[in-house]
Amino acid sequence: MSKIILTGDRPTGKLHVGHYVGSLKGRVQLQNSGKYDEVFIMIADAQALTDNADNPEKVRQNIIEVALDYLSCGLDPVKSTLLIQSQIPELCELSFYYMNLVTVSRLQRNPTVKSEIQMRNFEASIPVGFFTYPISQAADITAFKATTVPVGEDQLPMLEQTKEIVRKFNSIYGETLVEPEVLLPSNQACLRLPGIDGKAKMSKSLNNCIYLSDSADDVKKKIMNMFTDPNHLKVSDPGKVDGNPVFIYLDAFCQEHHFEEFLPEYANLDELKAHYTRGGLGDVKVKRFLNEVIQEELEPIRKRRKEYEKDIPAIYEILKKGSEKAEEVAAKTLSEVKSAMKINYFDDAELIREQAERFQS
Amino acid sequence: MSKIILTGDRPTGKLHVGHYVGSLKGRVQLQNSGKYDEVFIMIADAQALTDNADNPEKVRQNIIEVALDYLSCGLDPVKSTLLIQSQIPELCELSFYYMNLVTVSRLQRNPTVKSEIQMRNFEASIPVGFFTYPISQAADITAFKATTVPVGEDQLPMLEQTKEIVRKFNSIYGETLVEPEVLLPSNQACLRLPGIDGKAKMSKSLNNCIYLSDSADDVKKKIMNMFTDPNHLKVSDPGKVDGNPVFIYLDAFCQEHHFEEFLPEYANLDELKAHYTRGGLGDVKVKRFLNEVIQEELEPIRKRRKEYEKDIPAIYEILKKGSEKAEEVAAKTLSEVKSAMKINYFDDAELIREQAERFQS
Repeated sequence: MSKIILTGDRPTGKLHVGHYVGSLKGRVQLQNSGKYDEVFIMIADAQALTDNADNPEKVRQNIIEVALDYLSCGLDPVKSTLLIQSQIPELCELSFYYMNLVTVSRLQRNPTVKSEIQMRNFEASIPVGFFTYPISQAADITAFKATTVPVGEDQLPMLEQTKEIVRKFNSIYGETLVEPEVLLPSNQACLRLPGIDGKAKMSKSLNNCIYLSDSADDVKKKIMNMFTDPNHLKVSDPGKVDGNPVFIYLDAFCQEHHFEEFLPEYANLDELKAHYTRGGLGDVKVKRFLNEVIQEELEPIRKRRKEYEKDIPAIYEILKKGSEKAEEVAAKTLSEVKSAMKINYFDDAELIREQAERFQS
Repeated sequence: MSKIILTGDRPTGKLHVGHYVGSLKGRVQLQNSGKYDEVFIMIADAQALTDNADNPEKVRQNIIEVALDYLSCGLDPVKSTLLIQSQIPELCELSFYYMNLVTVSRLQRNPTVKSEIQMRNFEASIPVGFFTYPISQAADITAFKATTVPVGEDQLPMLEQTKEIVRKFNSIYGETLVEPEVLLPSNQACLRLPGIDGKAKMSKSLNNCIYLSDSADDVKKKIMNMFTDPNHLKVSDPGKVDGNPVFIYLDAFCQEHHFEEFLPEYANLDELKAHYTRGGLGDVKVKRFLNEVIQEELEPIRKRRKEYEKDIPAIYEILKKGSEKAEEVAAKTLSEVKSAMKINYFDDAELIREQAERFQS
């Protein structure tokens, strides 16, 4: 069986270093691993609209940002299919029929949906489209017959919902859909980078993100102003490493060779952490090191972005081509789905003959 | 502005005389009135699947029955567009986006949905597709820009939901959708025929329906066995007319000329009712009269049905042509919807130019 990846992002803002270490970097590795027959990367504009219906402009503006971030990070339209969700109408049709296979109470029990509803302060006024998005996600995954869905642990309940739909569909209508497997990230440290202000989540509205598209100067400013251990007042004070954003970022980004290159006094991160913990190591020094490490990672991304930005129409063309290819795949799946459900009446010669006989007898 | 009708039925069984007097007869009159530019008659198979997902065969078999019933009653494919809902994928896409404009609690408050959930004993296990069908109905109505939706009073909350979606869509994305008006039936007596067993509703499972496709013999047998006033034991006993199915059917079907023709001892239904009420009129006599009246109405329908049954592939062809025409209309609406939402990115030269300028500056 082919090994097929589906993954993607909601285009509600530019992507930041949290996206990069949490998924983008791994995605590029998967793409280049040669282990997958197809990699579909979806810009989930339709899903973004489920809770941004009154601000479609935000979604519309950010599609190109996300696409540029993708390409800059090394997603390669030759190896991966970049698509825009709303341009694949088949996904809506699949959702529509899957909605008959899931109960309202099952959706209400979905922990991911529950916590996202809380996060967005929706409570009683959840848009139906948002409430039902686990079903729409099942449509996305199954449309491309994805075998492998790289997600964080918080997304496991979503994948469980997809699996349930696949099993239910196949049991009622016969073997048609492919049950996907989750691919959890190998590096737990990368799962959730905090904001530069120490808040648990990076968020545009909190203005606490380092974006992949930030200039080198902006990145440096943000790092040098980063929140650290608030009790580490003097250099000689012992400092806390746990929960300290600077060290969490180092956990996610730095490798041994960075020490050789930028901070040869230490052999590795453990030594640096030990010194910080016992006191005598200043935040500025650690931040400067983090800056070097992150700049090294971001510089080639920024450079590629500048190149891609020169020809925006070409980016739309890449997305258009990718969406066309994706639609072909989704259309094939939909046709199999409709024929399993036997609702392809006009192509169903047997149905027409059978009914004709019934009325002639 | 064009006047456009959308109406239809769920193909979960053959249509019966309740459907006929409640909607079909009026629908044919509307079609022939010359007052409407377009009449769309939809066989709502996708809606039927929302609570028959595990029995698609039932829906599949009944599409042709409903189509034959339509044509036999005088719906004319030259004047009306007969379509199958599932063959218009645009309806799913419209539903998908309208779902962002309705909250879960708003759906929960819908009285029609509430009572249908009760009727079907769904309670906690309502399929999501069934729960959201008021939104899907809004998609059906607006896809064809229907101005006029002939429904019973019980469907008013559904139409209200459609109007809300239209207003919300137009207020966010600009004037695009047409707000439909309800057309209530003029003859209240026709709204709900009871079963021949006196039960409030005709239902296949109760085996208490007179079908449009029943043979003359079967109709007669059903009428002669009809439930009447259980206390009207002897002919001389006074009888009750209220709640007596035979008289409810006469209210719906008989006209003055029927008395001249079949029961000249009475000038009209009031005289017949008066005699029955004071005693001295036997049930058999009234039932024979009802039989004559109903047979007169059903005979031409049965005859046309026999003709249509001879060429079943031609019926599928009518549905295919109708669905194709309907899809053209729906596709135009969907394209307007997507362009109002500005999610037609690849056709949006302004977007591409605007973004290119943004990155060049």
